[in-house]
Amino acid sequence: MKLITEQQVISSPFKIVLVVADGLGGLPQHPGGKTELEAANTPNLDRLANEGTLGLLDPIGPGITPGSGPAHLALFGYDPIENNVGRGLLSALGLDFELQDGDIAARGNFCTLDKSGNVTDRRAGRVPTEISNALIEKLQNELDLGEIQVHLRIEKDHRFLLVLRGQGLSDALQDTDPQITGVPPRKCQPLNEQAARTARLVDEFSDKARRILADQKQANGVLLRGFSRKLPLPTMTDRFGLRSAALADYPMYRGLSKLVGMDIISREGDLVKRAGVLSERRDDYDFFFFHFKKTDATGEDGNFEAKVEAVELLDGVMPDIMASKPDVLLVTGDHSTPAVMATHSWHPVPLLLWGRHVRTDANHHFGETAALTGGLGRMPMMHMLPIALAHAGKLTKFGA
Amino acid sequence: MKLITEQQVISSPFKIVLVVADGLGGLPQHPGGKTELEAANTPNLDRLANEGTLGLLDPIGPGITPGSGPAHLALFGYDPIENNVGRGLLSALGLDFELQDGDIAARGNFCTLDKSGNVTDRRAGRVPTEISNALIEKLQNELDLGEIQVHLRIEKDHRFLLVLRGQGLSDALQDTDPQITGVPPRKCQPLNEQAARTARLVDEFSDKARRILADQKQANGVLLRGFSRKLPLPTMTDRFGLRSAALADYPMYRGLSKLVGMDIISREGDLVKRAGVLSERRDDYDFFFFHFKKTDATGEDGNFEAKVEAVELLDGVMPDIMASKPDVLLVTGDHSTPAVMATHSWHPVPLLLWGRHVRTDANHHFGETAALTGGLGRMPMMHMLPIALAHAGKLTKFGA
Repeated sequence: MKLITEQQVISSPFKIVLVVADGLGGLPQHPGGKTELEAANTPNLDRLANEGTLGLLDPIGPGITPGSGPAHLALFGYDPIENNVGRGLLSALGLDFELQDGDIAARGNFCTLDKSGNVTDRRAGRVPTEISNALIEKLQNELDLGEIQVHLRIEKDHRFLLVLRGQGLSDALQDTDPQITGVPPRKCQPLNEQAARTARLVDEFSDKARRILADQKQANGVLLRGFSRKLPLPTMTDRFGLRSAALADYPMYRGLSKLVGMDIISREGDLVKRAGVLSERRDDYDFFFFHFKKTDATGEDGNFEAKVEAVELLDGVMPDIMASKPDVLLVTGDHSTPAVMATHSWHPVPLLLWGRHVRTDANHHFGETAALTGGLGRMPMMHMLPIALAHAGKLTKFGA
Repeated sequence: MKLITEQQVISSPFKIVLVVADGLGGLPQHPGGKTELEAANTPNLDRLANEGTLGLLDPIGPGITPGSGPAHLALFGYDPIENNVGRGLLSALGLDFELQDGDIAARGNFCTLDKSGNVTDRRAGRVPTEISNALIEKLQNELDLGEIQVHLRIEKDHRFLLVLRGQGLSDALQDTDPQITGVPPRKCQPLNEQAARTARLVDEFSDKARRILADQKQANGVLLRGFSRKLPLPTMTDRFGLRSAALADYPMYRGLSKLVGMDIISREGDLVKRAGVLSERRDDYDFFFFHFKKTDATGEDGNFEAKVEAVELLDGVMPDIMASKPDVLLVTGDHSTPAVMATHSWHPVPLLLWGRHVRTDANHHFGETAALTGGLGRMPMMHMLPIALAHAGKLTKFGA
C-alpha cells in the first residue's frame, strides 16, 4: 500500500510518543522457546498490550537486514529504499559536521595492515579514542590532496569521518573496506564514469594516509565505506505537520533525528530523568522519539540474558513515559538483533500501539508470537507513522 | 500486489453476491470489549463464517479514512487512488445527472453568512428541501454566466449539485468551502494556469448567487467543494467480464454502481423483498451488489446499540440472500464507522468469504477479532474482487 498522507494532514492537539528499543526483535535460544522480549518480565508493557494492539513491522523488505539509518527513516515514515542514507552521511550527522552541497562523506576505520599490505584487523584492535584522535590530527595536518579539501573527525575508537570537499566530486563509489581480513584494502571502484576522478582521489587519500601512518603498529591503514552526499529530506513538519523532538543519546540517532527536522531535547542522566523531559516538553511538540540503545547493544554482544534485562529496564521506565500522557504510544524496534545471532537480522519487529481509538486484539502480552495475531497485522515499517497519525486525529478523509 | 486480472478473465456460470454493510467495521466501547459486529447475535453470519473464511480489508492505505466513493470503487476492484472520485461527480451520479465530457461538477451547500460575509453556519440550518428547491429554481432562472451554462439540482436539504458546461473548463480547483465558520467563503484557487478562467467563473457564480440570495436569512450564501469531471472508468463487464447489478437505495451508491457499469435493479420495500430480487434476477447477472446502509447510519449517529441491531437486521435477511443460491458470497463493509467515533475511520474492515473452493479457517464467528486469524489475512480492499472471481471460476491460470 502506498503512503498518501501528505495531502491529508491536519493538526490536532494529540501527542504521539514513539519508543524505539533498538534491535528489539529477537529469537528464542531453542526452537519453541521464548524470545528475549517474551522471556522478560514486562508488566507495564503487557498492560499496554492488553489495552492496545500489536503488529509486526518489516523494516525494508523481505529478507533484508537493515542498518540503523534506513530502519529509523522507515520508523519516521520515510521510504527507506528511496531515501537511502549512506554511512558517511550518518557519520557526519552524528558528529554535527555540516555537509555542504557537493561534499562527499565516508565512514573510515583505522585498520592494521601486515608487511605485505593485507588487512589483519579491520578495526586496528579498536584503538582507543585518545590515540586515534592524535592520528587523525596528524593526517589532517600532513595529508594534502591539492585543490580538494580533506576534513577528518574522530567518531569513537577506530571510527572516523572523512569528508572530501571540492568541485565535481561524486559519491558513486564502492567501499575500500574488503569486509574480510587476509586481503589488501580494495582499490576504490567508481560506479560510473563521472566518479572516476573521485575514485582516484580516494585511492590517493588511502595511499598517503598509509605512508603517514607507516610508523604505527596497530592503526597503520584506513578502510572507507558508505560514500554519500547530503540528503535533502523534507522534514516531518513539512510532510506530516509534526513538530517533532528526539530524546536520543548516541550521535547517529541524533543525526538521523536532525535529518528529518527533529529538535534534540535529550538530557544527561538516567532513563527516568530522560522520560521526565517528555512531560516537561509535552506542549512544545506533537511527536516525541525516545531512543533506547541497550536492547541492541546486548543483542550485538550475543548476551541473551543481558538483552532480557535491558527489556526489563525499559519496562520499568514505561510508567514514567506514560506520565507524559501520550494520546498515542508506539513501542517497537528499528530492527531485530537476536542475541543468538549477535547481529542485526531481517526478522520483523514487534509493535505495540496504544491510544485513542485503538481496535484491541486478544493479546495480553507484548511479544513476537503474540504479535502474529496482533490487530495491526504485518506491514512495512514505513506504514506505522500514518497509522499513528490516524489515531492522533491528524489525517483527513480520502474522497467523499 | 498489483491486480493482474484483466487479461485473465473467463466466463463461468457461477454467481457472486457482494453484501456491503456500509461502515461495518467497528470498535469496542472499552478496551478488550466487543465491537458492534461481535456484540450482535448473528447466527446466520456465524454459520457462513464457520463454513467460509474471514479476512481484513484496508480500503485505501495505512491510516487513511475513506470516503464512501473511493471505498466502493475498491470493493468493485478498482484502484481507489488512481481513480479518485470527486464529490461533484458523486453528486451528479446520485442525481442521475448525465455529465458530458468537459462538464465540471461540484457539490454545493447553502450556507449562512453574517453581515461581514463570514460563514456562521456551513449548512444554513439544514434548510429543508422544499425551501432549498425554490432557491435553486430562483438561482437557475436568474443567475447568468454568459456563454457558460449553469445547471443546478437539489440533492437534499442544503445540498445541491452545480454543473458548469462550456468550452475549456477545468476541475483543477480548490474548494470554496472553508470547512470552518467565522471566516468568509474562500476565493476559488486554481491548481494550475489552465484552471484560472474556471476559478474566476466559480467566483462569479458565488458572488451572483449571494446577490440573488441576499434577502434570505438562512440560506444566503453558497459553498462549493469537490470540483470534478466525468470519470471514464471501464465497466466491470469490460474489466472482469461481469454482468453486474446493484441493489442500492441511496442515490450515491446507485451512482457509484452506474459509474462501473452496473444495472440498478433495486426494488421498493423491506430487506426481504429486496433480497428476493437476487433470486428473481439470478440468471441475468454474474455479480450482484447488495447495499445495506443502516450499519453506517447508526455508526455515524454514535449509537452502539442501534448499530448492533442493524447488524442483527442484516443477519436476519441472510437466509433470504442465500435463497438466491450464490456460488460465492462476500459480506463486508466499505469502511469502518465505529459508533464510539461516530464517523468513518481508517480501521480495516472484516470480510466473510463463503463459497466454492473456500479454504476454511478455524473461525466460527464473524467479527473483527476473529478476522485477525482469518484464512484470507489482511489485504488492500481492491484485491478482494479478484479473489471472488477466482472462487467463481472466472480467472485463468497465469503462465504455463
